[in-house]
Amino acid sequence: MRDLTYQLDPALDHPMYEQLYRQIARDILQGRLPGGSRLPSRRVLSAHLGISGQTVDSALDLLKAEGFVRSSARSGYFVEDILPLPDTPKPSGSARPAAQAPPRHDFSPQSTDIQLFPYRVWTQLIRETLLRESELMNRGHPQGEPGLRQALASFLYQYRGVRTQAEQLVISSGVDQLLATVAALFDQPQLVACEDPGYVEARRVFGRSIHRVCALPLDEQGLSITALEASGAQLVYLTPAHQFPTGISMPAGRRAELLHWAARGEGRYLIEDDYDSEFRYTSRPLPALQGMDAHSRVIYMSTFSRTLAPGVRIAYMALPEDLRRRYQALQLRSGEAVSRYEQRAMARLLEEGHYTRHLRKASRVYQRRCEALCGLLQDVPGAWLMGQEAGLHFLFGVKGRSEEALIQPAAAMNIPLQGLRQHCQAARPRPALVLGFGGLTDSELVPAVGTLRAAWGL
Amino acid sequence: MRDLTYQLDPALDHPMYEQLYRQIARDILQGRLPGGSRLPSRRVLSAHLGISGQTVDSALDLLKAEGFVRSSARSGYFVEDILPLPDTPKPSGSARPAAQAPPRHDFSPQSTDIQLFPYRVWTQLIRETLLRESELMNRGHPQGEPGLRQALASFLYQYRGVRTQAEQLVISSGVDQLLATVAALFDQPQLVACEDPGYVEARRVFGRSIHRVCALPLDEQGLSITALEASGAQLVYLTPAHQFPTGISMPAGRRAELLHWAARGEGRYLIEDDYDSEFRYTSRPLPALQGMDAHSRVIYMSTFSRTLAPGVRIAYMALPEDLRRRYQALQLRSGEAVSRYEQRAMARLLEEGHYTRHLRKASRVYQRRCEALCGLLQDVPGAWLMGQEAGLHFLFGVKGRSEEALIQPAAAMNIPLQGLRQHCQAARPRPALVLGFGGLTDSELVPAVGTLRAAWGL
Repeated sequence: MRDLTYQLDPALDHPMYEQLYRQIARDILQGRLPGGSRLPSRRVLSAHLGISGQTVDSALDLLKAEGFVRSSARSGYFVEDILPLPDTPKPSGSARPAAQAPPRHDFSPQSTDIQLFPYRVWTQLIRETLLRESELMNRGHPQGEPGLRQALASFLYQYRGVRTQAEQLVISSGVDQLLATVAALFDQPQLVACEDPGYVEARRVFGRSIHRVCALPLDEQGLSITALEASGAQLVYLTPAHQFPTGISMPAGRRAELLHWAARGEGRYLIEDDYDSEFRYTSRPLPALQGMDAHSRVIYMSTFSRTLAPGVRIAYMALPEDLRRRYQALQLRSGEAVSRYEQRAMARLLEEGHYTRHLRKASRVYQRRCEALCGLLQDVPGAWLMGQEAGLHFLFGVKGRSEEALIQPAAAMNIPLQGLRQHCQAARPRPALVLGFGGLTDSELVPAVGTLRAAWGL
Repeated sequence: MRDLTYQLDPALDHPMYEQLYRQIARDILQGRLPGGSRLPSRRVLSAHLGISGQTVDSALDLLKAEGFVRSSARSGYFVEDILPLPDTPKPSGSARPAAQAPPRHDFSPQSTDIQLFPYRVWTQLIRETLLRESELMNRGHPQGEPGLRQALASFLYQYRGVRTQAEQLVISSGVDQLLATVAALFDQPQLVACEDPGYVEARRVFGRSIHRVCALPLDEQGLSITALEASGAQLVYLTPAHQFPTGISMPAGRRAELLHWAARGEGRYLIEDDYDSEFRYTSRPLPALQGMDAHSRVIYMSTFSRTLAPGVRIAYMALPEDLRRRYQALQLRSGEAVSRYEQRAMARLLEEGHYTRHLRKASRVYQRRCEALCGLLQDVPGAWLMGQEAGLHFLFGVKGRSEEALIQPAAAMNIPLQGLRQHCQAARPRPALVLGFGGLTDSELVPAVGTLRAAWGL
């Protein structure tokens, strides 16, 4: 052993034996201690490094247990034949992304108003659950908590016209996770149709699976049935209540056509993401497509992340009976991924009426804000709006202006805006912004629109 | 209108107008009210059904908003041309699976002892977080809470020799979800090698992605490097600390060979699932493969679900810098799926030393239990054991007995046992059981083994 340059420091968090172990192991891996060479004796190491013989023993034991060295009775420790590691490449640059300032005004269609979240009752329910139900630390049901699914089945029937039983419901931590679960239900590659423009993440989730994805155009009633027939797709992902991002509400006729399409072919399913259905301003909430379906061809899904708060990671879907059996046969377990305490608290939020009270209140607040914002925007010369009857976003355009001409000047004022184009695959709709108001406060609407108009020179 | 058989009940949860709306809509969808036909007038409906004119108006408004009917000035409401739905198929059988009795003794290798869970401190941390940090209801970081990742980077370096920064860590709700995220990082199909016998769920997750999976045999040191070289695989999923299900600890030489294999080819990665590394009984915990890697070719992952309790849905992985950049570019968001309150509580559990105290305590309890159980099983004539140096399970076989001959008699006594075979793809190892002791209590060991021996006649 040419040099014993090991640096041992008793002040470090790891014990001395482990420091010694690591440094010898590194020398072996990097070829500085070649295979077959003998390590210095316990006595030499101990004296040279100024550490106890016991510390050396522990390090040697660990090296032996890991297969770095072998011991030979009386003659000491020998390095095993281990291929040295090639040279360490140069370290890459810093991984730290630049910190971003919060936007001056938050027009993101994904944002919700967390001031509306029933924080006190939620905290109380979580605390009670934590105190009383320690058994929730065990593994849960693969479809999610039965109590939550029971409460959901009843809520969904009353408020969305969804006909399902607790046994058919599956919980997960978000709509994306539910879509990945749906993808897993089909073990043969399917062609999945998505709306274009539409929810990009749905295309991505199916794109990462064994399935193929095609983008179908919309007409003024939503997903084009002609394009669907021509596509040869077996599965369709759609947002009929308040299409993302255009805000189109699919009328009953188109819904019936879609149900017919599904009933006509073996193995066809509609994936109904009941996005933004809970907030509807100009007429009463439309019941879900699922409730009109007599052939069990609709997979219904929605999430509490949008109606309550993004931090509540609970979403749910109702599977037709044949797919529920497949879920079970494939031993899928998406319900296990969600905190059981939060699932129980959510069940009580539903059972005790807090959730529907919250929906009513939030709906009033959002409606007022939506009307105020739309009123301000309608005053912009050349403005047009669409899809403001429901949900937390709408389309806004200015005649003769490109998306870039609206986005860039706002970005310069630290107001990030989303163009319709970024939600498109092949579609080339007229230029528009997808404006959300969930993240705005009522009092900032006037200055926010004022700043935008100044930025646009309108 | 031939007959007005609508059943309206003011005692029901949904308002009367909605009941009327639904029944008319159903008649339209099912073709009983054909397209073009005129609905009875408001006055006739109101009188015939004994409801107010306002209720009828609300139902008609909703039918019109949904596109079921159109109104024509002065001449009333006409049914839109909507394709009627085909006949409803017969309802399928009950979805309710038969309830299962809990096992008499729980030998599942997946079970852990939740009595060891630091319930009081966890509950306290969650409550404090809930009370103090309402901003956690907002959307979190796509890689998970920065504070938790910071605490993890420090813990992983000290206890597992993992060299990573908070910026490279990604949180998710379980190892399966992390594996799905890894699959999503590669947009070109890869060949992924898995251990055989091995963790079936890993094969399934990659099998559902665009990637192909191959099963590689083990030798006494773990994953066969010869088979790996021959396979042409680019990614390898492995459990080097305590191989699932055989319990093999991979020695340093094999680890170095694997790192060499990875460093030799462009785009090769080792996915190190540091399964069961936290509990090691006969020698000190072996540092992770990741810490030996000088070329950033190891994706390191582990979970708190196994060390703390299955109900804690927090797992983590350290990505090499190039893959972290890809995670960001692909806008993956697995960290958002996990409750931020639990992530914050977990960060404090680490920072305040509760977690390492828990590991030390649990390790002592599991070691005692493992030794006691192995001692009892070694007395079984013809018995052999393997892999009991670490983790919460080991292999147990009886010379001359098939797996079925051990499983069936135990199942008859309501003691479900897992055979090694169920974790195999092509491998045909000698018959053995994968026995876990996390779900057993110390006091039930003697009667449990006694019952098994009686069942086996040994």
